[in-house]
Amino acid sequence: VNPDLASERQTASFSVEKLTAWLDGGAERTGLRRAVVEAIERDPVFSRENQYFQSQNERYEAAVRKAVHLQKKMHEMGWTDNGPELKYIYRALAGDVAFLLHRVFMRSISMLGSDKQVAKWIPLATRYQLIGSYAQTELGHGTYLQGLETTAVFDVTTQEFILNTPKISAMKWWPGDMGRSATHTVVFAQLYIEGKCYGVHPFIVQIRSLQDHSLCPGITAGDIGPKMNFEHIDNGFLMLQNVRVPRENMLNKFCEVQPDGTYVRSGSQKINYFTMTSVRIALISDEVIAPLMKACTIAIRYSVVRRQSKLEPGEQEAKILDYQTQQEKLLPQLAAAYAFHFINDYLEELFNKGYGEIQRKNFDTLPELHAFSSGFKAMVTQYSTSAVEICLRACGGHGYSSLSGLPSLYTKILASCIYEGENTILLLQTARFLIKSFAAASTGQPVPPSVTYLAAMKPGKCPAKSKSDFLSPDIYTEAYQHMAARLISSTAAKLQDLVQSGVKKHHAWNQCAVQLAQAAKAHCHYITVKNFAETVEKLKTQAGIQKIMKHLCDLFALHGIFSNAGVFLHDGYLSGAQMDMVTTSYLDLLPVIRKDAVPLVDAFDFTDQNLNSALGSYDGQVYQRLYEWAQKSPTNKMSPAYERYLKPLLHNKLSHL
Amino acid sequence: VNPDLASERQTASFSVEKLTAWLDGGAERTGLRRAVVEAIERDPVFSRENQYFQSQNERYEAAVRKAVHLQKKMHEMGWTDNGPELKYIYRALAGDVAFLLHRVFMRSISMLGSDKQVAKWIPLATRYQLIGSYAQTELGHGTYLQGLETTAVFDVTTQEFILNTPKISAMKWWPGDMGRSATHTVVFAQLYIEGKCYGVHPFIVQIRSLQDHSLCPGITAGDIGPKMNFEHIDNGFLMLQNVRVPRENMLNKFCEVQPDGTYVRSGSQKINYFTMTSVRIALISDEVIAPLMKACTIAIRYSVVRRQSKLEPGEQEAKILDYQTQQEKLLPQLAAAYAFHFINDYLEELFNKGYGEIQRKNFDTLPELHAFSSGFKAMVTQYSTSAVEICLRACGGHGYSSLSGLPSLYTKILASCIYEGENTILLLQTARFLIKSFAAASTGQPVPPSVTYLAAMKPGKCPAKSKSDFLSPDIYTEAYQHMAARLISSTAAKLQDLVQSGVKKHHAWNQCAVQLAQAAKAHCHYITVKNFAETVEKLKTQAGIQKIMKHLCDLFALHGIFSNAGVFLHDGYLSGAQMDMVTTSYLDLLPVIRKDAVPLVDAFDFTDQNLNSALGSYDGQVYQRLYEWAQKSPTNKMSPAYERYLKPLLHNKLSHL
Repeated sequence: VNPDLASERQTASFSVEKLTAWLDGGAERTGLRRAVVEAIERDPVFSRENQYFQSQNERYEAAVRKAVHLQKKMHEMGWTDNGPELKYIYRALAGDVAFLLHRVFMRSISMLGSDKQVAKWIPLATRYQLIGSYAQTELGHGTYLQGLETTAVFDVTTQEFILNTPKISAMKWWPGDMGRSATHTVVFAQLYIEGKCYGVHPFIVQIRSLQDHSLCPGITAGDIGPKMNFEHIDNGFLMLQNVRVPRENMLNKFCEVQPDGTYVRSGSQKINYFTMTSVRIALISDEVIAPLMKACTIAIRYSVVRRQSKLEPGEQEAKILDYQTQQEKLLPQLAAAYAFHFINDYLEELFNKGYGEIQRKNFDTLPELHAFSSGFKAMVTQYSTSAVEICLRACGGHGYSSLSGLPSLYTKILASCIYEGENTILLLQTARFLIKSFAAASTGQPVPPSVTYLAAMKPGKCPAKSKSDFLSPDIYTEAYQHMAARLISSTAAKLQDLVQSGVKKHHAWNQCAVQLAQAAKAHCHYITVKNFAETVEKLKTQAGIQKIMKHLCDLFALHGIFSNAGVFLHDGYLSGAQMDMVTTSYLDLLPVIRKDAVPLVDAFDFTDQNLNSALGSYDGQVYQRLYEWAQKSPTNKMSPAYERYLKPLLHNKLSHL
Repeated sequence: VNPDLASERQTASFSVEKLTAWLDGGAERTGLRRAVVEAIERDPVFSRENQYFQSQNERYEAAVRKAVHLQKKMHEMGWTDNGPELKYIYRALAGDVAFLLHRVFMRSISMLGSDKQVAKWIPLATRYQLIGSYAQTELGHGTYLQGLETTAVFDVTTQEFILNTPKISAMKWWPGDMGRSATHTVVFAQLYIEGKCYGVHPFIVQIRSLQDHSLCPGITAGDIGPKMNFEHIDNGFLMLQNVRVPRENMLNKFCEVQPDGTYVRSGSQKINYFTMTSVRIALISDEVIAPLMKACTIAIRYSVVRRQSKLEPGEQEAKILDYQTQQEKLLPQLAAAYAFHFINDYLEELFNKGYGEIQRKNFDTLPELHAFSSGFKAMVTQYSTSAVEICLRACGGHGYSSLSGLPSLYTKILASCIYEGENTILLLQTARFLIKSFAAASTGQPVPPSVTYLAAMKPGKCPAKSKSDFLSPDIYTEAYQHMAARLISSTAAKLQDLVQSGVKKHHAWNQCAVQLAQAAKAHCHYITVKNFAETVEKLKTQAGIQKIMKHLCDLFALHGIFSNAGVFLHDGYLSGAQMDMVTTSYLDLLPVIRKDAVPLVDAFDFTDQNLNSALGSYDGQVYQRLYEWAQKSPTNKMSPAYERYLKPLLHNKLSHL
């Protein structure tokens, strides 16, 4: 181990192993996780060793191979599809596997299909006798589902639906596993019966032959080409020309077309939102927090190995993490990784509670859950994407090398800001809930617990008198609460003013949209700070861990105030003098946390194979690894460019110039 | 042309052609530029058609082919190496060409070499009888040049220098054109004579045979592998083992080792900074502003073609640029593109003046020029990188497709934050100049014109009384000036307090570094706003253009206040009520500029070939082009994955599970 990195571990103020176990939810789970990771990493099929050198085609082939092999592996290991190992498997594979949309295909049938449909399709899918996908988004239509243009016309004479892509913008575009792999897909289309449109419904459509994988009649499909990341996934396009599916292929748990063409709706469709809610919450942990933790691990380990310039003349060059600017780049991102880990626990708990209610047919929590899943998905993905970019840039030139692992972490996490609901639109959905809640709270009506604070909104000033007062969670949580409530109430007032002055409701909403999105973000930021403080508060038994978590919580909170000073100063809740105290407290925390920075990332417990980074390995052999890996690059094979272009040039065939 | 895009052009409030000419610096230059672009684009060798599908090896080969072909082309067209066409050629090639470091090789010899050395090497390089590179950065050493570890020991008996890479961290790493192409390079190494170190000096070293391109004895070299972008460049590594070069190969305009080993220094080395200054200013236009303008063009054109959701029930889905949130994402980036175009003019003028002075042996302007080039490089690259990312994300899923052109614009511009001096370090260099200037100004000493405002720093309040007052350039320029001066003076005070309380100077500097960097950025932001306002002011003759430029200037300035509200509110210079006025004025400007958004990007005058974007073409045929391009992707060739993995799976060979 590089001695500069080793020395960082000798002075840890807490037990890394205990922190890891706490983050995992107990030492037993840590054990299970490590066992799964080890089994996966020992298996050469799952190797990611040459990933940075592979083409999109090679990545796809490897992902399919892994997905097929995984079935065998799970059987061998006794891992089940619903077992506790599943999330650890995904973590160990770093998402680098095919057939994720096959799972969504199955989930949509389970949720939206009748018992008969479930009985028919789920066993086939479970045994991989077909490969499923999920075709919702179109070339010209994303988040606004009502705008989908694919049609499904019921033909009463043959008892079939006839599916069509009426124009190019209606082509299905982006569905994963569809470009090259899937044999079946769930197509969302506008249902027409006798010329009348009944809105968007899901249909199971076979797109490729089970015998030879050729495209079925009427189907045009393929891969949408290169993307910023996700080379391993065959995101696809799909055009339908008079494709007929039997009446039984419309998923009909909630809506059915009867043989005579009668349309019958039964049950609640609200539960559909709950699927999206669950997906948005599920992705935060795997697709956002894990990459953020990896980026922090890589950047912080590298920053104690890398030395540059001198902090004092005559001394050795300093570790770059000893510079305030480097600390100020990285440590707030580390604090955010912890903050988001805890808010994720909170969201999962909220979700599980809500799910229990729903099973008891109580749908009261749905609006709050929808608002939460939307807002936190937007806030956490946006924050984490910036954070990973900061980590990348903080590693200078070497961070820019693919071999650092940071470019792929960044280009992948960036997508999370877009998929499963574009962030701005999600924030506006949260804002709608907040504005409603504010109106209700203002008139004394009951509101969900997370927004009761809106009722108590009043002007005021922060009582802090010294910089150390700002290390009190009560002080800063209160400041966040005040700020969020103020942004929500002032935007509600603007909205009301506009409507009262005669602006149409939709236009008034649009004219407030920037501020509404800001208010929604502020609300989520407040809840995140509050939840972090409460998590630290509850952690009574492990003093060493509590102490460092308290520092991280303070840093996360004060960084947020420092970086968004305007919204705290605006109404005088904080004075300029108090903001100076915040700044001092914030900057003073950096060298304190810096001492434990390496143990704090070690506790995330990523293996070297999992990080797949020349800069971030546990042993800190940064330069050796960069050199070793670079030599394996295909760019070090002889290039035809020499014989074709360089040789004639150098041998002066152009000397007539 | 897509009718939604066409209609945007019919209502332009100014002449696009006149605006283009003004941006180019006259209609004649526009003509020359277009002629160059046409000549390049008509030549199939320069095609970038399949670029998004190519591997790193293919990109490299294409770039070498283009570079070699370009020599021929320039000869044919009568374009010279110093002619006005050069920048247009580079723009037309979108930087996608090899041998850029060959130019740096030549420049360093011209600047640092004696007349004899220039006479020997420059003609060889000009005729491409060798291919040069520039080997400064090492695996373990970047910005801090004094820390370089490569050694050059003078051997008086053979009159040679013996070059060595003493350890792995001393390996040269990153130099462009070095991995696979270069035959020669300028190596920076610590000079030793009789055991004494004389610091870093440049040496010309041959690394590959001119006959067969094999590596020379003692040389280990190759390509550093995949990066986030720049696939076309062979960034390389280089290790030297007892490589001997004759005494004449040390570039010796300023320092010479005489035959007996006597070291002689002559002339000023300050001029070396001037090279860096010139590079930093030169890169802003080509590597930063052009990509930003392209990203704006793509995102804005797409945002009037893309429709989503409804602004009013019952209406057609709205163009996404009609949403306030979309306007607030894109239009400030458009304003920034203009602001940076103008600040670049300003910097080039300042540079040319300074260059004139230097030729008259007056080095007085060097510190200011160094501070300016550093600070603006940092500020403009950082701002523009964020801006391109915003453009990418504002295009949703399709922005994430490589075919949009946005991912490669982003991954390329991101590098500009790192190369030619890491941004944080550059900002701290600017801060050093500002702190010095502030101290001088405070004690009545003369300071350069750009910082005289520091002498006038005093507390005060903004006199604006209504939202329309904030459309007065005097009002907002004054606010920026006050804010920058306050940040500089308060950080200077903190620095002084620390030193007076006994903290060592270097540590005190480090403890203020975050605030110093912030102050430097504020200074550059202020100068950019001021320069934009002055540019608009001067533009008396073209009323239509002046009007829209005034709107953009207002937007750029108010966006900056809105986004950095804290620093304006902190000391009460702006009140909360005034900040509300700023917000209102800012948001009110969005729909005004939105009307001219398409003509404003049309004026940048990028051809479709140059944009290379399925989303951004002039005709707005977004969906057709995405579909057409996707079909050409190599991912639509038959994959071996089917026969190997999918077929056995689907044919149920795993049914025993």
